[in-house]
Amino acid sequence: MRALSRSNYFASNEDRFLNEIIDILRIPSVSTDPAHKSDLVRMAAWIVERMKQIGVPTVELVETAGHPIVEGRWHVDEGRKILLVYGHYDVQPPDPLELWESGPFEAAIRDGKIFARGSADMKINLATFLQALEAIVSEHGQPPLNLIFLFEGEEEIGSSNLKRFLTEQAGRLACDAVLSLDSGFPAVGVPGFFVALKGGAGGQIDIRTGETDLHSGGYGAAVPNANQVLAKLAASFHTPDGRVAIEGFYDRVVDLTDADRAEIAYSASVMRDVQEESGVYTLWGEEGYAPYERIGARPTLDINGMWGGFTGEGAKTVTPCEAHLKLTCRLVPNQDPDEINRLIQAHIAKHIPEGVQATYTARESFSSAYSIPRDNWALQRAASVMSDVYGIPPVFFRTGGSVPITHVFKQTLGAETVSLGFFQPGTPIHAPNEWFRLEDIPMAQRSYAAVLDALGED
Amino acid sequence: MRALSRSNYFASNEDRFLNEIIDILRIPSVSTDPAHKSDLVRMAAWIVERMKQIGVPTVELVETAGHPIVEGRWHVDEGRKILLVYGHYDVQPPDPLELWESGPFEAAIRDGKIFARGSADMKINLATFLQALEAIVSEHGQPPLNLIFLFEGEEEIGSSNLKRFLTEQAGRLACDAVLSLDSGFPAVGVPGFFVALKGGAGGQIDIRTGETDLHSGGYGAAVPNANQVLAKLAASFHTPDGRVAIEGFYDRVVDLTDADRAEIAYSASVMRDVQEESGVYTLWGEEGYAPYERIGARPTLDINGMWGGFTGEGAKTVTPCEAHLKLTCRLVPNQDPDEINRLIQAHIAKHIPEGVQATYTARESFSSAYSIPRDNWALQRAASVMSDVYGIPPVFFRTGGSVPITHVFKQTLGAETVSLGFFQPGTPIHAPNEWFRLEDIPMAQRSYAAVLDALGED
Repeated sequence: MRALSRSNYFASNEDRFLNEIIDILRIPSVSTDPAHKSDLVRMAAWIVERMKQIGVPTVELVETAGHPIVEGRWHVDEGRKILLVYGHYDVQPPDPLELWESGPFEAAIRDGKIFARGSADMKINLATFLQALEAIVSEHGQPPLNLIFLFEGEEEIGSSNLKRFLTEQAGRLACDAVLSLDSGFPAVGVPGFFVALKGGAGGQIDIRTGETDLHSGGYGAAVPNANQVLAKLAASFHTPDGRVAIEGFYDRVVDLTDADRAEIAYSASVMRDVQEESGVYTLWGEEGYAPYERIGARPTLDINGMWGGFTGEGAKTVTPCEAHLKLTCRLVPNQDPDEINRLIQAHIAKHIPEGVQATYTARESFSSAYSIPRDNWALQRAASVMSDVYGIPPVFFRTGGSVPITHVFKQTLGAETVSLGFFQPGTPIHAPNEWFRLEDIPMAQRSYAAVLDALGED
Repeated sequence: MRALSRSNYFASNEDRFLNEIIDILRIPSVSTDPAHKSDLVRMAAWIVERMKQIGVPTVELVETAGHPIVEGRWHVDEGRKILLVYGHYDVQPPDPLELWESGPFEAAIRDGKIFARGSADMKINLATFLQALEAIVSEHGQPPLNLIFLFEGEEEIGSSNLKRFLTEQAGRLACDAVLSLDSGFPAVGVPGFFVALKGGAGGQIDIRTGETDLHSGGYGAAVPNANQVLAKLAASFHTPDGRVAIEGFYDRVVDLTDADRAEIAYSASVMRDVQEESGVYTLWGEEGYAPYERIGARPTLDINGMWGGFTGEGAKTVTPCEAHLKLTCRLVPNQDPDEINRLIQAHIAKHIPEGVQATYTARESFSSAYSIPRDNWALQRAASVMSDVYGIPPVFFRTGGSVPITHVFKQTLGAETVSLGFFQPGTPIHAPNEWFRLEDIPMAQRSYAAVLDALGED
């Protein structure tokens, strides 16, 4: 029984595998913060070494204008299929730091969970995939199909350099499918596959009303207040019924079909209640759509950050001359990020009082939404494996999150992407106290190995 | 000629007087920040020593629940009038630090100005008043009338302990007039007196939508965003025509009379253009009122600070669970700060979506507006002195600023307050690069001395 011998392999290497997971969780590879540049390099170098150690014949650190890409190749047989394995080694910033119960890069273990920024998103998926590959190689000397590996350090900041790399190198990256490790489960203990990922657009708005902050008594009554201008603008982004109020925002959005709604309703039936899951005191959103329809299939605009004036302890009676706002739109198939940024820009121009300065700086490297055909061969085989391993059928579900690169794989390589990862719902990805369950580590190892086997079959 | 001999005294002590001004500007007596508590004590102790050195017979450091009050008494003659001299030795916080061209507590001199937090508001007024007193005493051995001194360290945070002190000690603080040193000029080189000061109300709003920040992809479409809730609330505070939209806000406001408008128009004719003065790109405010009517005579609401979510470098696609706002209302005669805070509270309750938590914490110790009768004896005498010293008649003008204690002097002691100070318009009080002109130092010394003489006449 191959599966059993695998389990033995994972069991007998349990400590080593856990220790290497802890090691990489302690590297603060925050891609958005220039202060962490060397940590990204350290993390990339670790992956290179680890892949060489497993026996991947060709591993390279590809320098980019940003953080490096780890590229690997293991060509086993012309007649076999080619799988491109994708993942990222960067993480979101850990702020707000004071809300972490243990340090974000301490990798503390309690209650059967390991707590760290990047644990769920997605260093443990990456590590367990490599551990699965090691197990296969220790048994067969090589993987069951041809592999291309691409691990980037810029997923959390838009993957711009990997996109460029894919566009330029598409010819030599041809593959039959992509396996993205950047994923999680729809319900605790219930396996599933992201079948739809949203696209994104967004950026920063900077408001300026004058040359200097002013005394609110001396001038407040007669001059614009940058915070007030920003608040009015920010309030203009949504209608009272929860829709995005930007003109043209929904023009390209395709209505949900009955089949779409049925698929979402089925996945919602196994997924936790959104309110319970999120810890909010009340739900909110676009009227006419259920919470998981809003999350999985309707475009949004979120104000990620907003600030202006005096924000310290105590009081300072100032009329501020500048205020700032960061926003992100989550887009659905057919919406174009560049067009959405132009619509945002036009909306701002329309809603800012004359004589006040407003600039909009769109973040680079957003991508369109992606949706995999449900009958794709790799998705079907992987689903069958997960059904065997877990004893329950995996759920096809949509996420409101973006893995921009999935759309680019389709665009540049013509390949569909199967997303499979093992973080459990409830883990606060992108927020304090992100966690990954220890019990999911061996399950991830076993599943990744079995999926590789199945994809390698003729 | 007394005046000439005075000028000689000030000239021959010029260096010493300037050095002591620089010394006290270097003490960061920021009353709102607990980290600076010992600097407030240091500043108060300096004043005590300086007054003793001049010869003030009784000087005491009165401890309070907050920063100490310096109380002094110089009783010269039962038959003479009693003048209560008021000032404050605390300053506003220096934020945003990065916009200062030299350190806020460095007291750098360039282009004929001394740059420091507290230079205009109001350490140089305080220092030059004491220097004027020193000159008088060196000449006559005592002041020309009975003096009570009250210098507090909490003006920038609402004067709550001085208010309590005045209420409790009113019996032994009886006086014929108050001279407040917390003032400035209506136009550069044109002397004037604040004849109306606004009252205040305000506090902090804290919004909470749930237990933790969330991934904007995972949940943003289906949960409230604290920034968005705050923005809608903040945008609800004003009508499109620039009025405060809080129900009942204007109920007690008395309409401007023709005489009021004429007085304001006259002062506006000598004052600099509000737009030019403030450096804003456009004016704003309540329709139907001229800029100086808005500033001097109409109540306002200013958003001093606003923040929520990710405000760092780069991007973090979070749906924040909390957001915050600091606001200040400037009030006109007849409006009651406590009532205004209750109206703000009711407005918030009405404008927050069900299921979202919002708390309003009113700042303590705001006060009502104050207006001095234009025929007050002390105001008339001081005005006559200023006319002599400057060779032009002083302007009676209204400020949008608050010196809350003026209302309390009237309430507790029945005394009217003459406000006379020497900062020039254009200095960014409460903002970076606050300055005071060197040439105004001898003028302040001369004027304060001459005003004391005039008030001491029978």
